[in-house]
Amino acid sequence: MGKYRIVMIGAGNVATHLARALDMHFDVVQVVSRNPLHASALAAQLRNAAAAADISAIVTDADVYLISVSDDSIPDVAAHLSGVTGIVAHTSGSVGIETLQCVGAPHGVLYPLQTFSKDADLDIHEVPFFIEASDSLADTMLTNLARALSQNVMYADSRQRAILHIAAVFGCNFCNHLLYISDNLLKQGGYDLDVLQPILKETMRKAFATSPFAAQTGPAVRGDRSVLDKHLGMLDHDTALLYQTISDNIQSSHNITKP
Amino acid sequence: MGKYRIVMIGAGNVATHLARALDMHFDVVQVVSRNPLHASALAAQLRNAAAAADISAIVTDADVYLISVSDDSIPDVAAHLSGVTGIVAHTSGSVGIETLQCVGAPHGVLYPLQTFSKDADLDIHEVPFFIEASDSLADTMLTNLARALSQNVMYADSRQRAILHIAAVFGCNFCNHLLYISDNLLKQGGYDLDVLQPILKETMRKAFATSPFAAQTGPAVRGDRSVLDKHLGMLDHDTALLYQTISDNIQSSHNITKP
Repeated sequence: MGKYRIVMIGAGNVATHLARALDMHFDVVQVVSRNPLHASALAAQLRNAAAAADISAIVTDADVYLISVSDDSIPDVAAHLSGVTGIVAHTSGSVGIETLQCVGAPHGVLYPLQTFSKDADLDIHEVPFFIEASDSLADTMLTNLARALSQNVMYADSRQRAILHIAAVFGCNFCNHLLYISDNLLKQGGYDLDVLQPILKETMRKAFATSPFAAQTGPAVRGDRSVLDKHLGMLDHDTALLYQTISDNIQSSHNITKP
Repeated sequence: MGKYRIVMIGAGNVATHLARALDMHFDVVQVVSRNPLHASALAAQLRNAAAAADISAIVTDADVYLISVSDDSIPDVAAHLSGVTGIVAHTSGSVGIETLQCVGAPHGVLYPLQTFSKDADLDIHEVPFFIEASDSLADTMLTNLARALSQNVMYADSRQRAILHIAAVFGCNFCNHLLYISDNLLKQGGYDLDVLQPILKETMRKAFATSPFAAQTGPAVRGDRSVLDKHLGMLDHDTALLYQTISDNIQSSHNITKP
């Protein structure tokens, strides 16, 4: 494969991590962001990239245009890319490939299943990348890009990508929120969230070593009504509703008959 | 401290882990379990312990009686311990210390905040142990026991212990169930739960490095109605109810106004 010339559109968390990693293998030639400070800040971290705040100033002869902007802004960005010669791809879990049809050029999706923060380094080699492409050219080029970054490259059509995204919402966004609830409770008891770290680590180990279904423990799956009632009685209205809903779902998933 | 002679009542997951660890520092002299096979199996893993299936055969002159049985069985066991000379403690997160008042002797609670499986080794030195005691003798002895096992020994009265238990239900039992939901969804997409491991690892790292409140991401906290509706439309009734309830709780916790 040649050394693709890449334009990064967007300068947020995902764009920053991808551009820095891609710049080690390819030439990121331009960063385009409506926010000129963000565009310059990202371009300054790359070997040889110009910054642009206006999408009409976009380099038109690059090989790859990567769109890493908020979901809502993707159609607007795509509408400005009909004059480019390279392939166009977005990086969103929730947006279908058809949103890029308007560009005319070969197009696709490069979806990294990870949560990125600008200031946190992470091992991009382990991040699963999911590819969808309009044709074999886009497929080959996006696969080349992803394989340069990660050992874990798979295919996902738009439906599969939506499923991956929902699974990540449950497994990551929602788990994080449950840790927030735990954190609040622990503060009421005079403790720090750190006291949960060993049990959480062991819970995760077990879930992946066997299966989350086999590893389920706790009062709901035991059908322990007296503990459930005691807990519900100690919680405020909203937290009790959450506790009840999740416990009900555990019981119906495991066919526990409610007493 | 002297080398306490300990009787373990119970032979389940918690009893097994505690007895094996205690036997390295103290003398576990007897294992009592209604199930004779379980009693023998655990006693055989200890240096010099007898097995008994009938609690009326309990050694009466030990220093410590540890009750690691199901919550419902604790009052019944306690009723049989009025003749013993040593201190009596249970290991439950949900049962108050007053359940042991009937034993007469100094008593207390030794609560390890961990999920134990008989076949999984884990580093007990990192497990937080929470102590409650009826008097200073029980406090000293239970603290000595816990400090021999773990570097992380704290105090918790019965209310605090209940809070710790609820926090563990949210942070561990419920998170595990959300991984089960993710696992189901991923199977529908043709993927394995392993694809979530990198994002989950990073989610946990962020939650503990900053705070789960600061680390919250996803469509609910962004107030992204179009993604929320798309996801709800793809889920079955029960899973959609779970998704909606958790998303609502995220939005009210973060003061996100619903559109």
